[in-house]
Amino acid sequence: MNLILTFRLLGGLLLFLAVALLLPLPFSYYYADGAWSAFVFAAFVCGGVGAALFYSCRSSKEMSLREGFAIVTLGWSTFALFGALPYLFSGAISAPLDAVFETMSGFTTTGATILTDIEIVPESLLFWRALTQWLGGMGFIVLSLAILPLMGVGGMQLFKAEMPGPTADRLKPRIQDTAKLLWGIYVMLTGVLIILLMFGGMNFFDALCHAFATLATGGFSPRNTSVGAYNSAYIDWVISLFMFLAAINFSLYYLALRGRLRDFYRNEELRIYLALVVGLILLVMWSNHGAVYTSIVDNLRFSVFQVTSIISTTGFGTADYGQWPAASQLLLFFAMVVGGCAGSTAGGIKVARLLLLFKHAQVQIYRLIHPRAIRLVKLGTKPVDRDVMHSILGFFAVWMGVFFIATLLMAAAGLDMLSAAGSVVATLGVVGPGFGSVGPVENYAYIVPFGKTVLILCMLLGRLELFTVLVLFVPSLWHK
Amino acid sequence: MNLILTFRLLGGLLLFLAVALLLPLPFSYYYADGAWSAFVFAAFVCGGVGAALFYSCRSSKEMSLREGFAIVTLGWSTFALFGALPYLFSGAISAPLDAVFETMSGFTTTGATILTDIEIVPESLLFWRALTQWLGGMGFIVLSLAILPLMGVGGMQLFKAEMPGPTADRLKPRIQDTAKLLWGIYVMLTGVLIILLMFGGMNFFDALCHAFATLATGGFSPRNTSVGAYNSAYIDWVISLFMFLAAINFSLYYLALRGRLRDFYRNEELRIYLALVVGLILLVMWSNHGAVYTSIVDNLRFSVFQVTSIISTTGFGTADYGQWPAASQLLLFFAMVVGGCAGSTAGGIKVARLLLLFKHAQVQIYRLIHPRAIRLVKLGTKPVDRDVMHSILGFFAVWMGVFFIATLLMAAAGLDMLSAAGSVVATLGVVGPGFGSVGPVENYAYIVPFGKTVLILCMLLGRLELFTVLVLFVPSLWHK
Repeated sequence: MNLILTFRLLGGLLLFLAVALLLPLPFSYYYADGAWSAFVFAAFVCGGVGAALFYSCRSSKEMSLREGFAIVTLGWSTFALFGALPYLFSGAISAPLDAVFETMSGFTTTGATILTDIEIVPESLLFWRALTQWLGGMGFIVLSLAILPLMGVGGMQLFKAEMPGPTADRLKPRIQDTAKLLWGIYVMLTGVLIILLMFGGMNFFDALCHAFATLATGGFSPRNTSVGAYNSAYIDWVISLFMFLAAINFSLYYLALRGRLRDFYRNEELRIYLALVVGLILLVMWSNHGAVYTSIVDNLRFSVFQVTSIISTTGFGTADYGQWPAASQLLLFFAMVVGGCAGSTAGGIKVARLLLLFKHAQVQIYRLIHPRAIRLVKLGTKPVDRDVMHSILGFFAVWMGVFFIATLLMAAAGLDMLSAAGSVVATLGVVGPGFGSVGPVENYAYIVPFGKTVLILCMLLGRLELFTVLVLFVPSLWHK
Repeated sequence: MNLILTFRLLGGLLLFLAVALLLPLPFSYYYADGAWSAFVFAAFVCGGVGAALFYSCRSSKEMSLREGFAIVTLGWSTFALFGALPYLFSGAISAPLDAVFETMSGFTTTGATILTDIEIVPESLLFWRALTQWLGGMGFIVLSLAILPLMGVGGMQLFKAEMPGPTADRLKPRIQDTAKLLWGIYVMLTGVLIILLMFGGMNFFDALCHAFATLATGGFSPRNTSVGAYNSAYIDWVISLFMFLAAINFSLYYLALRGRLRDFYRNEELRIYLALVVGLILLVMWSNHGAVYTSIVDNLRFSVFQVTSIISTTGFGTADYGQWPAASQLLLFFAMVVGGCAGSTAGGIKVARLLLLFKHAQVQIYRLIHPRAIRLVKLGTKPVDRDVMHSILGFFAVWMGVFFIATLLMAAAGLDMLSAAGSVVATLGVVGPGFGSVGPVENYAYIVPFGKTVLILCMLLGRLELFTVLVLFVPSLWHK
């Protein structure tokens, strides 16, 4: 690997982050929250380090696969480290590890928080907190739709054959063009949501923060009781809808905008995602009926919100699902593991991968009595490439392995079994709130530093689809 | 499928069961426990139905793959139904579902019990309870080593290439010869254990029951507090050793007896199994140290016993691991999922399958930076057949799917999340005691009928390696 080139690219990313760090300044001025200097200093540090790296590391080499893998993981980690500076400089978060946790949670669009009282934090920092999610979501969409497919990894490789969407090697050969298109959709949806939320009585600042956190499927809210604070059915329904939409493959929106609605409707992952959401809502409602809600209207409203919030891996809350029956909680646990569609900002294993796993298992059982039959696993109408299938099967195994090891480490960090598993599924799936002592009305503040470190790694692994991070442990990646 | 032939074979199995039902009679006579008539009636019913099926269903057809699949699942289910009769006839268990639960738990070598006071049960019934496990273990060894490989399913297919052991298609082409050899080893080990246990002060009856339950990795004990009742370090160590031995591939003993010790030592699954057991013991001891045991000797004794008991999926208890730290419990949870080696009486996913999953994942990650490299997954020195690899990957996915669905159903049956997951892993892995309200000092009596039914199915699915049961849901199996 060419380290010089890698450092240069990291420098470039830091320069970008320095600019982003100036965006909260207007809010600091407007609310006179006194945090402006924290952003200026942070931008100065970021810009300085970035410029030093960018201009001192010159390389005439082209970027190859190896630098690509390094830059993805190192880039996200660097953002989490340097993006934590405003929290520290302003004193809003005093422990560096906590600040990194909060920032990693932002850029990975997880939404797990160590803040025990969010509403005393200066507005400009709350905006920064929401912005880290929005930028993280933006970054991930481009990563998953335009960059990772080129590197032969990530959920979108499934669609190599199936979808004539803006995957990098097809319609739009240049990453920049693809990125602009996808960002256009992302920005547009964010704008629409801001307007709809303000229409429901939210002020501009809250609407902005919630829209950022919704489109990124992040889940950071500027309110202590999350979306529940507004106690508005209208706001609940609007956010439910947008959480649902944010977990759909963004290249499908591209197709829809181009008038190719048939491709949109016929997408098999989308159909299964829709069926899953509806099925989970009905099962959760059934399980909650009588036990939590006596009114069908309330049951529908809160179940829809929680299921879409969890399966889209957003993590907003309007109800304390920690008090729901065990069956409801298990359904939400399952939703966390599934996550949304590939090519969206959602985390989890992804609907398409689980769908293909299911089909693969079906074929295996069928072949027991028809050993000579050749049956290919298909997605939509096209058979899935064998290498892609192998990769998905490996991904599933690694996900389960990481889940188990991290849960064990969290138990060693002092959490009970349910909370340990809950904290890991919530971070590895980039959801946010988990179960037990890290449930929807709790937070991650009390966890010991070792445990926080494990969860920070889980967020990174989960967001970057495991393999992208784990490949860094293959020694030959580092050879010159 | 030829139903006539299937019924005829089931009839034959029932005739065998009728004979087995007479074996407890000497104990009933010796202890004068008054339960003899229950066995005589049960044998009469069994023999009558068996004879009727066997002689009325005549078929000149050869048995094919399809009848094979049907007979395995139906055979085990029939044994669980008819083997439950003595419990019912004697009144020791009053509810039919409970009796079937106990018998299915026996024949699948699970060891989960619905008895709240074991010591008031007549001796002949306790012997029958132990015998169901011993016969179940015997049946499973032959099934997994001699029959399933012919049908292209089960853990032993992994060794198609690797091991020159008594797999049906190799050394011993005829199932009967293979079966006799394997049973010889099984009986011999049982005999040795009986002697060793009596040497430690156990009476013959208890030694017999415990030896039956140990070699079958079943875990039924005639004592309320399981092996802990003897409070003897000697007995703990002897049983620990035999639980460890019982979870080793029986074809390796065959090789060892033939003097091919090199094949024994070189077996990769055995090595990993040994490493896992040692590793788990050390981790559990570390986690327990100070928190549960202050004496290293006690910590070693109880940790060794519990780890070997759980990874071999026996389920004997000498300590209430439900009171151990969360990390210790998670390690035991992991051990339940793993289980022992393929070709033993142990349940779980099996060491070899998980080992190959891990290797498969490794190859997938390696291939990201070497996309054109060809790297085969090997077991020992031989590459694993691609079809076998696909089957293992499918097995893992199905295992996780069944685990989740069954856990959800158990939550719907009123169990809390931990107990729901614990009851499923303990039955699907054919272990016995689980976690939470079905922990080592608890039992399954309190679970509602719906929940018991789910767990009965889990035991069956787990014992027959999922696919063997699920294949019955492929419609074309039933075509003429």
